[in-house]
Amino acid sequence: MSEMLVVGSVAFDTIHNAEGKHEKIVGGSATYASISGSFFTGVQLVGIVGRDFPDQVVSALRERGVDLEGLEVADGETFHWEGRYTDDLTARTSLRTELNVFADFQPKIPERYRDTPFVMLGNIAPELQLSVLEQVRSPQLVVADTMNFWIESKLDALRELLRRVDVLVINEEEARQLSGRHHLIHVAHELLELGPQTVIIKQGEYGAWLFAGEHVFSAPAFLLEARDPTGAGDSFAGGFLGYVAAAGSADPAVLRKAVIYGSTVASFCVEGIGVERLLTLTRDEIEQRVEKFRTLVEFAGS
Amino acid sequence: MSEMLVVGSVAFDTIHNAEGKHEKIVGGSATYASISGSFFTGVQLVGIVGRDFPDQVVSALRERGVDLEGLEVADGETFHWEGRYTDDLTARTSLRTELNVFADFQPKIPERYRDTPFVMLGNIAPELQLSVLEQVRSPQLVVADTMNFWIESKLDALRELLRRVDVLVINEEEARQLSGRHHLIHVAHELLELGPQTVIIKQGEYGAWLFAGEHVFSAPAFLLEARDPTGAGDSFAGGFLGYVAAAGSADPAVLRKAVIYGSTVASFCVEGIGVERLLTLTRDEIEQRVEKFRTLVEFAGS
Repeated sequence: MSEMLVVGSVAFDTIHNAEGKHEKIVGGSATYASISGSFFTGVQLVGIVGRDFPDQVVSALRERGVDLEGLEVADGETFHWEGRYTDDLTARTSLRTELNVFADFQPKIPERYRDTPFVMLGNIAPELQLSVLEQVRSPQLVVADTMNFWIESKLDALRELLRRVDVLVINEEEARQLSGRHHLIHVAHELLELGPQTVIIKQGEYGAWLFAGEHVFSAPAFLLEARDPTGAGDSFAGGFLGYVAAAGSADPAVLRKAVIYGSTVASFCVEGIGVERLLTLTRDEIEQRVEKFRTLVEFAGS
Repeated sequence: MSEMLVVGSVAFDTIHNAEGKHEKIVGGSATYASISGSFFTGVQLVGIVGRDFPDQVVSALRERGVDLEGLEVADGETFHWEGRYTDDLTARTSLRTELNVFADFQPKIPERYRDTPFVMLGNIAPELQLSVLEQVRSPQLVVADTMNFWIESKLDALRELLRRVDVLVINEEEARQLSGRHHLIHVAHELLELGPQTVIIKQGEYGAWLFAGEHVFSAPAFLLEARDPTGAGDSFAGGFLGYVAAAGSADPAVLRKAVIYGSTVASFCVEGIGVERLLTLTRDEIEQRVEKFRTLVEFAGS
């Protein structure tokens, strides 16, 4: 079993949804991805927080086996995002983005993380993602997430990044934006042309697709009553890479199962507010839901 | 192997899409459903056309094993619909609806069709669908399709119909409209409460769900370059019921496979304009694509 390295944001989120206002709960791409990865393997986290970040959260992560040597504590306040979801959770509006200490974040990869074979580049500026790749030594698999903001403002750096990552994880809408195509089969082809050997296109309540060369896999959505989609994508990516790292291989059969495990962790994530459900989740519950995913799509026997 | 009865529209469609204008090509819910069902079993068609309906189409249907005793030929012109699709095919606008002889359509089920065990009520007015149920004798399985127009204008008759059908096939958007709910799991529960033992919710490029009591099945979409979505839903329903009729059983394992076969036929349908692809399609091609569907979702072996 290999360890995984996660680089991304650690943040406070203030979330408005149909249930009310959830003030300054813990969030951030690295937080969600680390917790999700920790169900499968040891996780090393690189990020930055301010002096206001609660000690008990740090302790909770450490107890899960998340190595926090790479979590920098800087003078100032932690990144704080505030947003409002529509009642059907299909859209959200950002109300406030206070970068705080995150404004000057320069990922510093501790020496003993630099040979970690599995690397997750959370959704941060592509230059910062590239700076991580300058510091690590010949990783076995690099997964990157991105978003519309970087596609619109940092396209050159993003293209440079994509030439150097193995797996791109991206939302369907952003995949269309980045590829300039509409039909999913063309979208996937264009994205693979940009560099990654594997592209995972997430469709939210419609599941996810994995494309690796001629290899195509369709993962169903899990039917549930979502309460808070914050962190679903990061939980997916963290669970995906955690499963791959634990398997120590990225062959197609492992990647398929990793998509299902990532989808499963994400499905639990959205059933709670913020990270709350992930913190009570057990590996047994994950396995039971993976089994439900299996029966959901079976049609061979009759 | 049992036969199936299809009642619905037989029409001319004039379709505008990115490729141009396709003038007065043959369409209609009963046409698509009959051709699709005919890959699996014998089909009896009940519908109405005008004197302008081409003999060679009638012959082509007959050669496929579609029984046309129930196709009434009336004085006047055949139903003609004209519509324009957006370039990405996600929406369409009706430009013209000339009901012509269809305005007075009263389905008359020939005596020798009345004991046919599998019945497909295509997307026509719910009163006409109910009138079919008055004429048939204890069918084994009745499948009904419907659309937003009937939900908005004939809700009482539609509710009466739903109390008497076994399987409702419906688009996701229309399923939300009819149920008044958003989350798919609630939508399905509400629709099952209306009467059908089985509800199939079609999500177009995102696949389909089958709900039968506690039994849930998720069918993936097939990745392809759609050219004309006209008739996709009818092809799905016709292929679905044709497979069930050929199996002679509607147990859950058969229903799952029938959803895949229906999806497969529909996936071929949208690759051509109108019915053209369905008319060249072979059972071998269907089986090959069903096999691709199987490998698309497999993640058990590693």
